[in-house]
Amino acid sequence: MKKFQFTKMHALGNNYIYVNMFEEHIEEQELAPLAVKVSNVYTGIGSDGMILICPSERADVKMRVFNNDGSEAKNCGNGLRCVAKYAYKHNLVTSERFFIETLSGVVEATVHPQGNEVPEVTIDMGAPILAREQIPMTGASQDQVVNEEMEFGKERLKGTAVSMGNPHVVFYVNDIEQAPLTTLGPVVEKDSRFPEGVNVEFVEVVNERELNFRVWERGSGITQACGTGACAAVVSSVLNEKTKKDAPTVVHLAGGDLTIVWQNKGNVLMTGPANVICDGTYYY
Amino acid sequence: MKKFQFTKMHALGNNYIYVNMFEEHIEEQELAPLAVKVSNVYTGIGSDGMILICPSERADVKMRVFNNDGSEAKNCGNGLRCVAKYAYKHNLVTSERFFIETLSGVVEATVHPQGNEVPEVTIDMGAPILAREQIPMTGASQDQVVNEEMEFGKERLKGTAVSMGNPHVVFYVNDIEQAPLTTLGPVVEKDSRFPEGVNVEFVEVVNERELNFRVWERGSGITQACGTGACAAVVSSVLNEKTKKDAPTVVHLAGGDLTIVWQNKGNVLMTGPANVICDGTYYY
Repeated sequence: MKKFQFTKMHALGNNYIYVNMFEEHIEEQELAPLAVKVSNVYTGIGSDGMILICPSERADVKMRVFNNDGSEAKNCGNGLRCVAKYAYKHNLVTSERFFIETLSGVVEATVHPQGNEVPEVTIDMGAPILAREQIPMTGASQDQVVNEEMEFGKERLKGTAVSMGNPHVVFYVNDIEQAPLTTLGPVVEKDSRFPEGVNVEFVEVVNERELNFRVWERGSGITQACGTGACAAVVSSVLNEKTKKDAPTVVHLAGGDLTIVWQNKGNVLMTGPANVICDGTYYY
Repeated sequence: MKKFQFTKMHALGNNYIYVNMFEEHIEEQELAPLAVKVSNVYTGIGSDGMILICPSERADVKMRVFNNDGSEAKNCGNGLRCVAKYAYKHNLVTSERFFIETLSGVVEATVHPQGNEVPEVTIDMGAPILAREQIPMTGASQDQVVNEEMEFGKERLKGTAVSMGNPHVVFYVNDIEQAPLTTLGPVVEKDSRFPEGVNVEFVEVVNERELNFRVWERGSGITQACGTGACAAVVSSVLNEKTKKDAPTVVHLAGGDLTIVWQNKGNVLMTGPANVICDGTYYY
């Protein structure tokens, strides 16, 4: 029987089995099937997938994300906060600010320790991409897509499109509880305006520092939290002059809160919790 | 922050967080909320519930089963095999045959070690109850309900009713893949013939030592495995002279195999696997 040490962590309910590859040795060809096996709640631990924390030649640590279907993901905003907390708590890094390599590039992480705990972590999510064709979104103009009228069947909505490495479209609603997530979400996701599909966000402006947020994720449907979506919502809200620019905005997601700031319309910083559920030994 | 040691185990996919209460101390009023919390796959470990292995005044160990909604269950056949394996492997008992106290009585368990492993465990499930009114099932006769014609809407089926402490009705089909689980399951479960509801089993006789089995569980719908249901299927098959009496019968459930024998039409012995998934420390 083989085994490895693991830590299960979650960030706003997005939960993974974390494995410290500075200490564990798992063969490359075993990773994908193990991610499927360990994620099965009936016969495994149960999770959204498995995240490896590995040595890196380009940064302080490297994150590899395996979904629970065995596919490898490029990145995961909620996973990055957990990796950062783990790396800091297990002394894989020596300072509170450090770099994490992902399949989509190197990102900066900052932990915020309080005594022995690390309740929150900030991830630099990079700069948003606003040019229409880079979202990507179809249309004649090469301008930004801000408060643009769009028709979906009989519905006429004003949307703002933002890419955070993945495409998002943000719509404002008066009452988040009335947001047409299940009716419009799947229609907008697959609309021909968005050749690569799109994540659909509904946002209620609580005040100029606070947003209520619900998301229909491309390929997943309704989820508890979407870090890049929350970033897109804040970028959209600055562009539409609904929130203060340069000031942190609290985004209330179904799974909990994220605090997001778009610094001088440059990079977007996302701050939020990362929680250790359990650690132990997995047998396979 | 509080914590306890746990082992996650499964038996044919029926998975629980097992806690050794010979060593751990959790306040009584914390148990129900903890079972809910630890069972949540998003923010906890993820499981069907939490099972405590406790000292007993009436037997070698006592099992307490908390469902993932926080309610306490009377018994759990799959859980008993895991408790038996755990108790033996952790030296809570000193022989291969011992007694486990449950809320519904004391049962005998026998482990079958092979070297350092305990791949299979036998549980004495007690004697089946066959008298109609004790199933309970309505009807004039006080006889056993064996191959009795029953109508459900337009469907006319021949069923055999068996109680293993909980009510079951068994129907034979020619091809288990064609069993009308989703259509007839919920109808039969709530039929007025069964005043306490009923677990609905469809059985294909492979040969006189082997059955294919699918179950619609009362209150749960389709599940991967139902230990008492598999026992009821074998009792029914002996009564209908489809399998050999006194000889072990292999029951193929969706989650795996159980071997069941109805000894001299007395007690029913159920033998099957119990698997350790992981162990570790849970933080709350």
